[in-house]
Amino acid sequence: MGSEKTLVIGMFGFGVVGEGLYKILKQTPSLKASIKRVCIKNTHKKRNAPAALFTSEKNDLLLDPEINVIVEVINDSVAGYEIVTTALKNGKDVVSASKKMLSEHLGELIELQQSTGKSLLYEASACASIPVIRNLEEYYDNDLLHSIKAIVNGSTNFILTKMFEEHLAFKEALLLAQQLGFAESDPTLDIEGFDAANKWVLLLAHSYGINTNIKDMLFNGITQINEIDAKVAQSKNQSIKLVAQAQKLNNGKVASFLLPQFIDASEHLYFVKNEYNGVVIESGFADKQFFYGKGAGSFPTGSAVLSDIAALRYGYKYEYKKLNQSIKAALSNEFHLRVYVSFENIELIPKNEFIQIEEWHAGNERSYLIGTIPFDALLHKSWWKSNNTSLILMPQCIVENAQVNDLKKMSLSLAGLEA
Amino acid sequence: MGSEKTLVIGMFGFGVVGEGLYKILKQTPSLKASIKRVCIKNTHKKRNAPAALFTSEKNDLLLDPEINVIVEVINDSVAGYEIVTTALKNGKDVVSASKKMLSEHLGELIELQQSTGKSLLYEASACASIPVIRNLEEYYDNDLLHSIKAIVNGSTNFILTKMFEEHLAFKEALLLAQQLGFAESDPTLDIEGFDAANKWVLLLAHSYGINTNIKDMLFNGITQINEIDAKVAQSKNQSIKLVAQAQKLNNGKVASFLLPQFIDASEHLYFVKNEYNGVVIESGFADKQFFYGKGAGSFPTGSAVLSDIAALRYGYKYEYKKLNQSIKAALSNEFHLRVYVSFENIELIPKNEFIQIEEWHAGNERSYLIGTIPFDALLHKSWWKSNNTSLILMPQCIVENAQVNDLKKMSLSLAGLEA
Repeated sequence: MGSEKTLVIGMFGFGVVGEGLYKILKQTPSLKASIKRVCIKNTHKKRNAPAALFTSEKNDLLLDPEINVIVEVINDSVAGYEIVTTALKNGKDVVSASKKMLSEHLGELIELQQSTGKSLLYEASACASIPVIRNLEEYYDNDLLHSIKAIVNGSTNFILTKMFEEHLAFKEALLLAQQLGFAESDPTLDIEGFDAANKWVLLLAHSYGINTNIKDMLFNGITQINEIDAKVAQSKNQSIKLVAQAQKLNNGKVASFLLPQFIDASEHLYFVKNEYNGVVIESGFADKQFFYGKGAGSFPTGSAVLSDIAALRYGYKYEYKKLNQSIKAALSNEFHLRVYVSFENIELIPKNEFIQIEEWHAGNERSYLIGTIPFDALLHKSWWKSNNTSLILMPQCIVENAQVNDLKKMSLSLAGLEA
Repeated sequence: MGSEKTLVIGMFGFGVVGEGLYKILKQTPSLKASIKRVCIKNTHKKRNAPAALFTSEKNDLLLDPEINVIVEVINDSVAGYEIVTTALKNGKDVVSASKKMLSEHLGELIELQQSTGKSLLYEASACASIPVIRNLEEYYDNDLLHSIKAIVNGSTNFILTKMFEEHLAFKEALLLAQQLGFAESDPTLDIEGFDAANKWVLLLAHSYGINTNIKDMLFNGITQINEIDAKVAQSKNQSIKLVAQAQKLNNGKVASFLLPQFIDASEHLYFVKNEYNGVVIESGFADKQFFYGKGAGSFPTGSAVLSDIAALRYGYKYEYKKLNQSIKAALSNEFHLRVYVSFENIELIPKNEFIQIEEWHAGNERSYLIGTIPFDALLHKSWWKSNNTSLILMPQCIVENAQVNDLKKMSLSLAGLEA
């Protein structure tokens, strides 16, 4: 127990993260962790390391009995899955940063850790430099975790910040993000919310012990957000952020979604700007906590991978305690959301799905309404993200079903909403 | 490695933290940790637990071979020292929340952990619910840690917040803090900075591997801060916070101090209000990170103790890597500080100690100056905290010695400062 193991590492990938790790481990003998081999696709490319280090044959690493840790920092989720599962089966501990692969195979990977007794760590896969996975795993297990709200995608947060602070249009802000390296040349995974959704699958598992997948998740990106939405936010001293949120309901189950959200200037997440990430955790025992830091980039990612390597030295494993509890937490669809919807054509908005409409603004180009709608009326539906419609959650967006009858009494007449 | 141990706990103390822990461990069999005996002073007091649990004989716990973990949550640093050292020598792992005791005996306690091979964890002793010690220990070891700035005392932060936001005088704010339970009936340890200084000793050990003590530390509390200081801060859109700070200097050594400081509205620490704590860490690898949460109180403290208990299940120990490095970090006195000093009588200010004075404001009741002074001119000196003098650090307060000659050329004539 607690004794230190010397780590002999086989690493897949030698991009900016991999090369940085190699240098740091070389300069830090006290870590007792060294990279023995690196597997890359192209062995002819000139690298800043001895040629003998490299191979393109994965079994040079996966079948080497001396290698006891595999670090996987490649950008290919199919190959990543093959590497990680084989390594675990071959008796090696694994560190991975591949959020998409981890999100898609989480259940199987948890079982594989249990059957092999090996450890798979992936702190770098969500919020990079913020040690959120390990903190959720270790600090909130016996606590009533009321809620977690997180900004987990730096690209979209950068774009939204520029839309707000420099009044850029979405496309201008996206271009700037690409020029500065905060968004990929194909930005789809970021701006449509897929990257954030994959990270949220991982955080949900460690916060509530819920193993879900992005197909069953209510999520969106930020492509529909327009200047009028931004003006509405600013007139209320709010900004718009892409926020993943989970919260315990009165029925004991958990509400979860990942959508653009109006964030009041008094909230912690309001101060998470540019490419940064932030996480707010509320619990009955430790009260409110806020974590803030860089969520992507080679250094923050490398820092998180390194912390996982350090943790393997004393045999650290995720326990997935909350997944293994006798009374498991479960997701619920039994709640309502208070939403802002801006649109060009009222005919395309299913007004009768709203149980209450509290505000209605007609404009020349766009109109918007604020109302309360059942979660189910959004899940697996597309009206709210097509036809130039933009849906943004209001602050305190979760409405418990028990509150709904009171709201109905206060609703504006739906007839008044016709153009 | 990584296997789970069943913990049998002997606990010293059954105050709000102790009783809370007892209840939670009882309700959470999955934790595989149970409290076998509790040692208290007064066994006749009525408690919410079976009488057989309690004893006033410490050896009932310390000599019980079945008990493998001692949790020490009493409020007596002399008794705490005796309990913790005996427990380690008797082969038991220990969790303690006694910051004063830990600060005073840290070097010895580290040696004792090494000689016994047992683990001593104390996350609750600094910033309670914020997992700062373990994060410093695990996340910044291989990183160039540029600086750490922390608000570690909730009582003084509450008082300062009320002075700023409700314009209370120091004594009124203190009284309010006592009424709400955020300050002790004898508040000396909090308001004069001793409590924060003890916590800072622990954080310095885990951030830079520097083992120091409060006698060698430049520190103060908040008792000298007055309404005029608060007005000066507000006129610049700043507040005043009691901040512990350490920073790498160009000479490779570390500057460290704990003093009131003007904090700009753009800084993270500005948003740490009331009884909350906050920590900002800047590192070359992970960039800037901010941690925020409750730093005291029974629940946040209990939460941190519980996380230590959970960590003992997989044999976790602090490694004190930075203390054991071949090239150790050391504190430096070779730097200057940019300070604001307000006073009633200029004659009592050693003006010639300042190498530059950049601002000077005469007032009817109090005057103030802003200038740069060698660190050594403050350390172990008392002029700046007596005779109704108030010293507050300016933002970007550290001035490297190499910058000093340039500053001298720009100084106001000292003759102009005479009343």
